[in-house]
Amino acid sequence: MLKKVLEQGREAADIALEQLLPPASQHPTSIHQAMRHSVFAGGKRLRPILCMEAGRMIDSCGDGRLARPSRAQLGSQKADSLPPGIEQVGAALEMLHTYSLIHDDLPALDNDDLRRGRPTCHKAFGEAIAILAGDALQTQAYEVLAQILCPAEARVAIILEIAHATGTIDGMIGGQVVDLEAEHKKPDLATLEYIHRSKTAALITASVVTGGIYAAAKPTDIAHLRTYGESIGLAFQIVDDVLDLTQTSEQLGKTAGKDAAAEKTTYPALFGIEESVRKADALVEEARAQLEEYGEAASTLRALAHYLVERKK
Amino acid sequence: MLKKVLEQGREAADIALEQLLPPASQHPTSIHQAMRHSVFAGGKRLRPILCMEAGRMIDSCGDGRLARPSRAQLGSQKADSLPPGIEQVGAALEMLHTYSLIHDDLPALDNDDLRRGRPTCHKAFGEAIAILAGDALQTQAYEVLAQILCPAEARVAIILEIAHATGTIDGMIGGQVVDLEAEHKKPDLATLEYIHRSKTAALITASVVTGGIYAAAKPTDIAHLRTYGESIGLAFQIVDDVLDLTQTSEQLGKTAGKDAAAEKTTYPALFGIEESVRKADALVEEARAQLEEYGEAASTLRALAHYLVERKK
Repeated sequence: MLKKVLEQGREAADIALEQLLPPASQHPTSIHQAMRHSVFAGGKRLRPILCMEAGRMIDSCGDGRLARPSRAQLGSQKADSLPPGIEQVGAALEMLHTYSLIHDDLPALDNDDLRRGRPTCHKAFGEAIAILAGDALQTQAYEVLAQILCPAEARVAIILEIAHATGTIDGMIGGQVVDLEAEHKKPDLATLEYIHRSKTAALITASVVTGGIYAAAKPTDIAHLRTYGESIGLAFQIVDDVLDLTQTSEQLGKTAGKDAAAEKTTYPALFGIEESVRKADALVEEARAQLEEYGEAASTLRALAHYLVERKK
Repeated sequence: MLKKVLEQGREAADIALEQLLPPASQHPTSIHQAMRHSVFAGGKRLRPILCMEAGRMIDSCGDGRLARPSRAQLGSQKADSLPPGIEQVGAALEMLHTYSLIHDDLPALDNDDLRRGRPTCHKAFGEAIAILAGDALQTQAYEVLAQILCPAEARVAIILEIAHATGTIDGMIGGQVVDLEAEHKKPDLATLEYIHRSKTAALITASVVTGGIYAAAKPTDIAHLRTYGESIGLAFQIVDDVLDLTQTSEQLGKTAGKDAAAEKTTYPALFGIEESVRKADALVEEARAQLEEYGEAASTLRALAHYLVERKK
């Protein structure tokens, strides 16, 4: 059941990305090839899937909850199908995630040669094009978001949510800065939690919240989605750090043991693997608790929360 | 007269930038200090000024032209004052311009140590923070644009215009890519024109056009502003390339003669200095021709066009 959702979600995200990225043959070709090299590198499309499934949940909670035109008015038949066009929001989220990976991998930052088992962007295209390809994926995400198929007020709200989640104060860039500066230092819990919340959880939260905004969710629904996103986002990062310690490079598709080598601040470095896994499990329960009132409509989001910590096994 | 406009415009842009950038004391401080180091480095604020003056021109053309609430309704008294809040659009444009300068200066790209007579961002803060500071200025620009004081439809149109102008197909990043790849090659005219149009003119054009959109300009006005912007943008780049050949590093506030050293494709490299100056003058006349029907309201934009080529003397 979840496997099918993951497969269909990845497929929908891939089709949208294919349509929304300039073709590899488009002049100037090197930058478009570099963008596609990193976007089409076998990602799970977790952020697009979370966005789409949050939108589906809100959309299938009945007409009473919806401020936007009904499915019938939009010409859609199936009550539990995705809000039309939401995969474009997912594609923009994936472009932003990929831009952050390209820049994180650069020699001046994490200096990684491998990503998902393939050469990183700067290894394949050189540093200059990799820097510009990251820049361009960010730009393209906003060009897409300015044109998604929801009212302008919702588009602006989605853009604001995403820009804030990827920014410097409590967003992705801020997390990356503190993560860099925490290398080779004894980690403390406040620093660690800031890094986790900002570097990974913020964009995961924005993925869920923007799916809700796209489907015209009410403020109370947005609040539930936000807490759900924050909890699974933190759990996801903790599990990622555990996997870095317990799996091989081959299993990960990237260099294993890097965090320890760089003396990075991680949850397992502070609390050990067992306690970290317990914390991740507790966060998943917190996330699932947010979904109680949505009944069957929330079954996929519930399963997704569980799936995130199951990766560790 | 123009001097006063330039001074007041720079001041308005600086006040907006001061308000819209996180303070240097905001955690994590290194990234905010790096962003401010490059933004507050003595720039002329040409793009914000063009945006604000285009908005002022449209706004002062009389009620008949305006779809948005009248100045009286907005509580504004002076007929020729700026559309309220337009300086925030200008600030976002300057953030995007500064992001492009920070990344262009990186060792993997132009490898510049000096910018406006001061150390470049990576010289002052290291490469990792400079890459992230450029990223963050792009992000912050969209966070600002999502909240500017015009209807959501106009905000979305402005975001689309700016994202496209800074993108890969015929925007800023595309121009930068082709410029990089044209080094140490014999320049041809098509390549040169693509670089000029994309690398510099596209964002200058977007500055003028978004000022018009903010002031609720009609499509015919937008078309005039677009042609005006394209012409002055090209003229600006030609003059820049001439100055690189004819001025000292001290006069420029950056390394002179760099284009020739890198065998860069420039207008003077293809046609010589005299012909390049003639071309720039002709483009300024084309730009001014777009403003005929606006009478007195266009006097500042006319003077600005002239000012851009006067820099060469």
